[in-house]
Amino acid sequence: MSSKPLALSVKLIVLGESGCVLLLRRSMASKNNPGKWDLPGGKADPCETLDKSARREVFEETGLDIIIGRILGAAESESPDKRIAYLILEARAESNEVELSDEHDAYTWVSPVDLPNYDLLPQFRPVVDACAKR
Amino acid sequence: MSSKPLALSVKLIVLGESGCVLLLRRSMASKNNPGKWDLPGGKADPCETLDKSARREVFEETGLDIIIGRILGAAESESPDKRIAYLILEARAESNEVELSDEHDAYTWVSPVDLPNYDLLPQFRPVVDACAKR
Repeated sequence: MSSKPLALSVKLIVLGESGCVLLLRRSMASKNNPGKWDLPGGKADPCETLDKSARREVFEETGLDIIIGRILGAAESESPDKRIAYLILEARAESNEVELSDEHDAYTWVSPVDLPNYDLLPQFRPVVDACAKR
Repeated sequence: MSSKPLALSVKLIVLGESGCVLLLRRSMASKNNPGKWDLPGGKADPCETLDKSARREVFEETGLDIIIGRILGAAESESPDKRIAYLILEARAESNEVELSDEHDAYTWVSPVDLPNYDLLPQFRPVVDACAKR
């Protein structure tokens, strides 16, 4: 049980051609978890619906337009001053051409069976492994 | 894939004495799912952190103060004009004395093994059944 404030982040399993999943590598200048593979998405903006926040975050990080699908699951992480609750959505990208922001230094489209081989942020391991098994 | 706006609702598995789980029965005047058993919680207020929305909603519906624990999962439902994404949190109640609002007409503290016997809103079945198995 924790009394830290709980913030919301919306993350996406973005599917591209052939059902591959988009992973982004956190830049070495990142304060948290540099070099780890991450899912696109981020903090939900309280002035937007969740789908709008999700589309905006993915576009800012990748230049991709997405169509949002099912709710896949939830996850959490904790920092010294807060907890983050992640809502994880499925999405389909309308193209495979990614343009990264400064936040990430690499991207990859991963076949579901190869997902377990990536050094992913640990809070997303269960939901990503479940994708690998589908 | 859906283009409906996606709204957030925060729902709680509230644990009381002896690890029993609080269920609330939707009033017969409810527009949606009258008579079904529900979890406490509701729409997240964009001006609040998630934990504050959760505590406020539970207090309005039950008069209970809660301490929020882990993120247990996610769920979704759909209406003609929108989708709702549910983030489901564990919480502990500081008392077992419930005062209902007009939204519900009954409450019960259920032993985890008895949870499968309740006519619950279907979107919460998986996460509630997972509690029953713990």
